[in-house]
Amino acid sequence: MTAPETLEGWYALHEMRRLDRRAWSALDESRRGKAETEAVRLLTDAESVDDPDHGRSVTYWVIGHKADLLTIHLRPEVSELHELERRFDETLLASQTHKVFSYLSVVEISRHGLPEGAIENVESSPYVQGRLYPDIPEYSTYVCFYPMSKRRGEQDNWYLLDAQARGELMRAHGRTGRRYAGKVGQIVTGSMGLDDWEWGVTLFADDPLQFKKLVYEMRFDEVSARYAEFGPFFVGQRVRPGDLGEWLR
Amino acid sequence: MTAPETLEGWYALHEMRRLDRRAWSALDESRRGKAETEAVRLLTDAESVDDPDHGRSVTYWVIGHKADLLTIHLRPEVSELHELERRFDETLLASQTHKVFSYLSVVEISRHGLPEGAIENVESSPYVQGRLYPDIPEYSTYVCFYPMSKRRGEQDNWYLLDAQARGELMRAHGRTGRRYAGKVGQIVTGSMGLDDWEWGVTLFADDPLQFKKLVYEMRFDEVSARYAEFGPFFVGQRVRPGDLGEWLR
Amino acid sequence: MTAPETLEGWYALHEMRRLDRRAWSALDESRRGKAETEAVRLLTDAESVDDPDHGRSVTYWVIGHKADLLTIHLRPEVSELHELERRFDETLLASQTHKVFSYLSVVEISRHGLPEGAIENVESSPYVQGRLYPDIPEYSTYVCFYPMSKRRGEQDNWYLLDAQARGELMRAHGRTGRRYAGKVGQIVTGSMGLDDWEWGVTLFADDPLQFKKLVYEMRFDEVSARYAEFGPFFVGQRVRPGDLGEWLR
Amino acid sequence: MTAPETLEGWYALHEMRRLDRRAWSALDESRRGKAETEAVRLLTDAESVDDPDHGRSVTYWVIGHKADLLTIHLRPEVSELHELERRFDETLLASQTHKVFSYLSVVEISRHGLPEGAIENVESSPYVQGRLYPDIPEYSTYVCFYPMSKRRGEQDNWYLLDAQARGELMRAHGRTGRRYAGKVGQIVTGSMGLDDWEWGVTLFADDPLQFKKLVYEMRFDEVSARYAEFGPFFVGQRVRPGDLGEWLR
Amino acid sequence: MTAPETLEGWYALHEMRRLDRRAWSALDESRRGKAETEAVRLLTDAESVDDPDHGRSVTYWVIGHKADLLTIHLRPEVSELHELERRFDETLLASQTHKVFSYLSVVEISRHGLPEGAIENVESSPYVQGRLYPDIPEYSTYVCFYPMSKRRGEQDNWYLLDAQARGELMRAHGRTGRRYAGKVGQIVTGSMGLDDWEWGVTLFADDPLQFKKLVYEMRFDEVSARYAEFGPFFVGQRVRPGDLGEWLR
Repeated sequence: MTAPETLEGWYALHEMRRLDRRAWSALDESRRGKAETEAVRLLTDAESVDDPDHGRSVTYWVIGHKADLLTIHLRPEVSELHELERRFDETLLASQTHKVFSYLSVVEISRHGLPEGAIENVESSPYVQGRLYPDIPEYSTYVCFYPMSKRRGEQDNWYLLDAQARGELMRAHGRTGRRYAGKVGQIVTGSMGLDDWEWGVTLFADDPLQFKKLVYEMRFDEVSARYAEFGPFFVGQRVRPGDLGEWLR
Repeated sequence: MTAPETLEGWYALHEMRRLDRRAWSALDESRRGKAETEAVRLLTDAESVDDPDHGRSVTYWVIGHKADLLTIHLRPEVSELHELERRFDETLLASQTHKVFSYLSVVEISRHGLPEGAIENVESSPYVQGRLYPDIPEYSTYVCFYPMSKRRGEQDNWYLLDAQARGELMRAHGRTGRRYAGKVGQIVTGSMGLDDWEWGVTLFADDPLQFKKLVYEMRFDEVSARYAEFGPFFVGQRVRPGDLGEWLR
Repeated sequence: MTAPETLEGWYALHEMRRLDRRAWSALDESRRGKAETEAVRLLTDAESVDDPDHGRSVTYWVIGHKADLLTIHLRPEVSELHELERRFDETLLASQTHKVFSYLSVVEISRHGLPEGAIENVESSPYVQGRLYPDIPEYSTYVCFYPMSKRRGEQDNWYLLDAQARGELMRAHGRTGRRYAGKVGQIVTGSMGLDDWEWGVTLFADDPLQFKKLVYEMRFDEVSARYAEFGPFFVGQRVRPGDLGEWLR
Repeated sequence: MTAPETLEGWYALHEMRRLDRRAWSALDESRRGKAETEAVRLLTDAESVDDPDHGRSVTYWVIGHKADLLTIHLRPEVSELHELERRFDETLLASQTHKVFSYLSVVEISRHGLPEGAIENVESSPYVQGRLYPDIPEYSTYVCFYPMSKRRGEQDNWYLLDAQARGELMRAHGRTGRRYAGKVGQIVTGSMGLDDWEWGVTLFADDPLQFKKLVYEMRFDEVSARYAEFGPFFVGQRVRPGDLGEWLR
Repeated sequence: MTAPETLEGWYALHEMRRLDRRAWSALDESRRGKAETEAVRLLTDAESVDDPDHGRSVTYWVIGHKADLLTIHLRPEVSELHELERRFDETLLASQTHKVFSYLSVVEISRHGLPEGAIENVESSPYVQGRLYPDIPEYSTYVCFYPMSKRRGEQDNWYLLDAQARGELMRAHGRTGRRYAGKVGQIVTGSMGLDDWEWGVTLFADDPLQFKKLVYEMRFDEVSARYAEFGPFFVGQRVRPGDLGEWLR
């Protein structure tokens, strides 16, 4: 079988950290203040990179025990993602956290699924460029991130389907997704050779019920029902860097 | 296949925490007293929200090593659940615990399984409203919580069954459940797109043997026998916030 | 399918704890002495409950890295098990341990497998009562505990077999077990709705080789070969509470 | 199916420990010296038990992150293994380590696979006795230990094969093993009812490449290809107790 | 089935370590300086072994939470790998890290896949020798390491295929790999009997997108689609030992 042709945009690093509350509460007031200031500045700097050529960064609280903080960085180079990770590692706040999960991937679109006009001239197509170098959607109060792979079962093996069958299944899936236009924004990133699953899915919405509605509906699409394998789901609520302090007290 | 239509009520957060006994016993008496007072007040406040419009909270000891404390919060918004989690995180007691598990979901009922009258007018049906915004049952001395998914096996794939077959299997399952009316209360929450399994099941009973009887009987229902996959089971015994102190000494 | 009728006796809590040797060795002599005295008294009290109406308790060293101490409590109520767990949690010794595993279940016998006379009058049958409220066997120098479930595979699904087929498979299995009468004692506990596996099996013997012989022989019974799924195995050597001190020095 | 008849010799405990380097380096010089002396004496004592009636002990460095130290004890009784474990637990060095893995099993040979003469008189057969109470081979610079089970799949189920089929598969496997005579020594231990897998395999060689060659070749034997399931592999390099000090500095 | 004949070169140890930032930041300036100097010297020494007879060493930052530092050592003997591990373990820097993963394997090529001329005289073939004792490619700014096994499923079982079928599948796979010549360098190491998976794959590239492109394309090769099982993926960015200090501040 031949792999579908894909286009790639920014690299993505999803970083999940958990605060060690015991260690944190053992720091004295002034060190905590310093830690907060330093972290806020770093995240503010990262988020202020809003030139379409330079990437995006956005930060969420994670609900539940899986993590406390999720930062998503989109950048042109892996080295920039690593630089952002390393700079945060060096902060006093980071030294009070554990990195509990992360995900390295790259924004991916399938050439095959593009509209007619766009296929021929991807470099100049605003549609293609907007998907490869995406804005964080307006409706981004909540985020849902999960990694996934396509099943390679002994009967149901995605990678042994022919291109046409795969194409039809994906198009049907796309139609389900489009019914949530304006309610759920989506960035799909590819991660083969970069991380443990094959893709990352990052959903954005102002109403977190839409995550459930969308994922539930999609699960009945044959491509999910038969071929999808899901990793952990992380749900977060957006936090502006300047508001980190509230949570750190 | 088409996803069944569902109705959603309150969001639910199940929070499991384990006390670090070594750290706790290293705190001096007065700090422990302060920690206890603070935690009791927070949980008491949470539980006192008994206006049907504003949610429910209830706390359990967990039996065994999986956790010490399980708090279940039901609230209209995810942000309120996160606020409750965060406020507890900030307490001195919480800084002596580890969040070992949690589950984010939303109360869900299938429109399909509703009685005739209720389907037509869910907004005004006391039955529907009572299930979407449920009371903690009277018989709630013990709790049993477990997450679960429907199997997507290569032969037995729930999501490839047609709606009628799914409906019949679920109705038979419902009949088993109803034989435990008055003995076991149940809140089913959906968690696709919100957490790692597809549903959460929270059972309440005064006699914990009924959990075993019910789950054993249900396992022979075809829908469980063939299609259910179960996560960890947590069993707890109710604790009124004011009695936390007993356990903390 | 209809679930087999079962009878239940005492609830069981298997508690595995690992001593944090570094923390323990950092305690001064007098605190270690206090910790030992307190723990010995608690376990002695628990074991001295030998009234058949009130339960059993027994303690084992675990061989290997999985745990150091295994205490098995049998009691009429889950609340009593939790009380025992909590009282031990509050000791100084417990604060130097981690609870690495536990298992909550209830002594279970199948009504179906009972001898003729016993079925009709379980309340007055000494045989039935002796199995529901069992003594720790005389030959109990070693213990072997493991949880297990019946397979629900796509071809081999225990819960889709008819009652007669299940009955025959279980009877053949029982015959294997009876060949070890007088050498291996067994308490089977049900744990659906109570813990992560469906049953707990607790074997007792003076000669630990009999555990291997019995489990090996049983694995060739069709019911195990085709339908059994096993959790972790814990093997321990009995310790009288008064001898705990030897190990704590 | 009937279980094959087996003969059992010494019990085996494989103990893997990891040194907590941070804790260790925080100890002062004199305590480290004391810890080393104590540990060296204990392991030297254990290894000096070379009377064929009393067992064997041997110690290895483990390569990589899985552990630092692997000690293999062979003894007539489980209680002796536990005594060895406990005595080491009580040392200062042990309090700076974590027990990361262990394996409890018993030397096992199949009566079926024995040469004609040996079957009739196992008690007086030097061949049989030498396998039940084995020497550590001369060529033992490197060790490879892994636990394994036989598959009980829905199609490929070892325990549903008839005795003749199993026998033939095992004999072919034995022939592969014998091609490594003089290069790889092997002790097979049974662990049903004693630990989480069904067997332990301990290989010894002066040239670790032979581990790879042997395991690779065997994987193409039908018994492995179709029926073997493997646990973690631990590879170590022999250390004489007196040389422990080198590593502890 | 007969195992394919293989040739082996250097042993490989992939070591992943995570820095405990909290412990590290608690060290005073001068100890941190000492730790850095010591670690830099050790890694510099290791990397300066560039005599083709003596091996290779190379160090990478790992992107994300899986580790901080990945060092790959290639050496003629396992004992040398262990010596390198042990010497680093003894440094002050190492005592502030956790070894979170490692992989022991040996460079392997299949005699079968060699060009005509090379098969006959492997000892003198520069091609063969260059593959058994490989240079780190020029284009090595990024590394991708993952372990993998061939599936032994109930239908799709690599080890039950005949040699010709396996050969054809591998040759097709090789052709995919060769399309990335000059962009992605690859060292394949065998690890049966040495570690938990059957092979390790180490890819090198200046452009990390090529990892994704290559792995994605290969996944559609039948040998991967049907028979490959993958472990965790680690992606790193090269760091010269002398630049470690940047990251340690």
